[in-house]
Amino acid sequence: MVKRGFNTSEFELRVARAQSVMHKQELDAIFVTSPENIRYFSGFDSQFWESPTRPWFVVVPGKGDPIAVIPEIGLSEMQKTWIKDVRSWPAPRPKDDGISLLSETINGLPQKFNAIGAELGREMALRMPIIDFLKLRNCIKGHIVDGSPSIWEMRMVKTSAEVDKIRYICKVASEAYLDLPNYLHLGETERDVARKLRIDLARRGADTTPFLPVISGKGGVSQIVCGPSDRMLQEGDVLFIDTGSTYDGYFCDFDRNFAIGKISNEVQKVYELLWQATECGIRASVCGATTQDIWLAMNKIIEEASIGGNNAGRLGHGVGLQLTEPPSHMLGDKTILVPNMVITIEPGIEYSPGKTLVHEENIVVTENGPKLLTIRAPREMPIIK
Amino acid sequence: MVKRGFNTSEFELRVARAQSVMHKQELDAIFVTSPENIRYFSGFDSQFWESPTRPWFVVVPGKGDPIAVIPEIGLSEMQKTWIKDVRSWPAPRPKDDGISLLSETINGLPQKFNAIGAELGREMALRMPIIDFLKLRNCIKGHIVDGSPSIWEMRMVKTSAEVDKIRYICKVASEAYLDLPNYLHLGETERDVARKLRIDLARRGADTTPFLPVISGKGGVSQIVCGPSDRMLQEGDVLFIDTGSTYDGYFCDFDRNFAIGKISNEVQKVYELLWQATECGIRASVCGATTQDIWLAMNKIIEEASIGGNNAGRLGHGVGLQLTEPPSHMLGDKTILVPNMVITIEPGIEYSPGKTLVHEENIVVTENGPKLLTIRAPREMPIIK
Repeated sequence: MVKRGFNTSEFELRVARAQSVMHKQELDAIFVTSPENIRYFSGFDSQFWESPTRPWFVVVPGKGDPIAVIPEIGLSEMQKTWIKDVRSWPAPRPKDDGISLLSETINGLPQKFNAIGAELGREMALRMPIIDFLKLRNCIKGHIVDGSPSIWEMRMVKTSAEVDKIRYICKVASEAYLDLPNYLHLGETERDVARKLRIDLARRGADTTPFLPVISGKGGVSQIVCGPSDRMLQEGDVLFIDTGSTYDGYFCDFDRNFAIGKISNEVQKVYELLWQATECGIRASVCGATTQDIWLAMNKIIEEASIGGNNAGRLGHGVGLQLTEPPSHMLGDKTILVPNMVITIEPGIEYSPGKTLVHEENIVVTENGPKLLTIRAPREMPIIK
Repeated sequence: MVKRGFNTSEFELRVARAQSVMHKQELDAIFVTSPENIRYFSGFDSQFWESPTRPWFVVVPGKGDPIAVIPEIGLSEMQKTWIKDVRSWPAPRPKDDGISLLSETINGLPQKFNAIGAELGREMALRMPIIDFLKLRNCIKGHIVDGSPSIWEMRMVKTSAEVDKIRYICKVASEAYLDLPNYLHLGETERDVARKLRIDLARRGADTTPFLPVISGKGGVSQIVCGPSDRMLQEGDVLFIDTGSTYDGYFCDFDRNFAIGKISNEVQKVYELLWQATECGIRASVCGATTQDIWLAMNKIIEEASIGGNNAGRLGHGVGLQLTEPPSHMLGDKTILVPNMVITIEPGIEYSPGKTLVHEENIVVTENGPKLLTIRAPREMPIIK
């Protein structure tokens, strides 16, 4: 079991990194609204964010400690975090849900660059009403600019304590996958499988399982975004399972494939091809290489086989406080790999119309090369009878 | 077990209602980006939305059928819904992630009011990068205005098929709560309780449990937004558990309180007070009354007791595809109750500093008065030994 929470020194380190990035990108401050970013800077964890009613804010100034601007209902708990300056208003208050308090807070900070970063860009969403955001733009002295490149630059590279949590949940899910063939049977439905695995993941120590597609199809799956359904597992099916489970806020994200009874030689060959592509993707994940290099290494194997492509648009991505995070392993993404990036290696192929196989592992980039966080998928597809 | 999914006639009904509201509010179309709103109009369900990488859109025109504008990876599954017009682009494509395709789609619609509604307002967040939203504003012919009042006006009033799903998950969670005292014990931690209940909810038929705060405290809890922690249940504690579990996309949202061993007479009296306040809240939930009336009915009981207030800002709210939805039972909210609104009745009181109790039930408003969806909390606090 990995210790929950982080020491104050971890948050001081994150804020120092944030401030160095902010200075480089000429931002006076950043304010964040999403659960993941608020948790990243404050350590504050709450399931209450499931309710979209009240906005929450954390302001990270260019110098000094973060300030939380939050609904009264969260005051006592936010005061237990390392954040000393916690300001609150009685929410919900439709006419002014924190906007005057947030703008006072931001306007009270030293302004040098006349620019405040916010979650305006790629792979982020602002968790506040846009009409309030537009109002805020008129209330604060500086310009609100896209702070997401700065935030992702920080979050993309994990601390050792973050990697430990991801390693732990990867182990939990790996062991759950390994155990599956011991209790699944032909004739069960995808939904049965999802329920059993969800229960097993909780028993083994996963806090939550927000992502658990379970999809089956003869010789492969026709898609990887919807499911489970009430379809029954049949002889010759490939059972595809993916999971994003969490431990202390951190996700794993990897899949496994199972053969239902006897599968064709053709499918076995595609499985082997993807297993090899994964090997190449892992080997390419060295410091100094780019995410495009990882893509090229895997894509070469897939292209040489000349049996098909895929429509995912990329062959892996970052993982951490969210199921998927930048960077993306794709043509044109030139993110340079540095130690402590945690990424997925995810080659997939539609080898025949409507028949797709996808493999996936999670690794951490280190100075001594890539290290697996997941227990490597077996070389041959495990069989469910 | 309640049938999954909806008939096409249900979606036709929803779109007809949307179009009538849009016409009244002078909108040429609405486009939605959030999982709940996309699901509401299309029936499309996906766990893939857990990844923030790719934006998805559904456009509901003032006349005619909805149009989906989505990443290629979701194409084949969206085509299986009742939506006939599905357009896609190869995502992720950072330079133009659907914006040109979405603006072409919107610009291709008849324009009469010069106004397009979007999720810009209260209790909504736009699930797309704001920089792309600002770009979109410049690309489309009409103005983008706040469409959230229109969307909430529709979603606030459920169809019978929606109520059936909420009733089902309320029953599942009610029975799980009733069974808890049979397997919980003094000395277990809040986290143990959460894990056991999460497993039991899955076994009983909950699809997911995104919300499960488990919080304990001597004589009451000091807050209701964070937890579970590793705190052990002790003699004299109140154990507060809340859950938002789902069935086929629909949430329940209600809590229960348990006495750990022997609790004081004072706590028992507060429990009885809230039980009575809940009765009054339920009785006040009749067609034609306002949400403020519900608040007044409960607040009267709480104020007359003169033992404290609470910082939640409201005493209940709507529930449906999200854990909390409009309206809010609070002073100043004059939403008029109509049949098929599903709401929570949620009185709480901090009867002594740091000691809060909260009750909660889910009901549906009908022409024949309020009907409970949850199995009513017991009149006396169940005891865990």
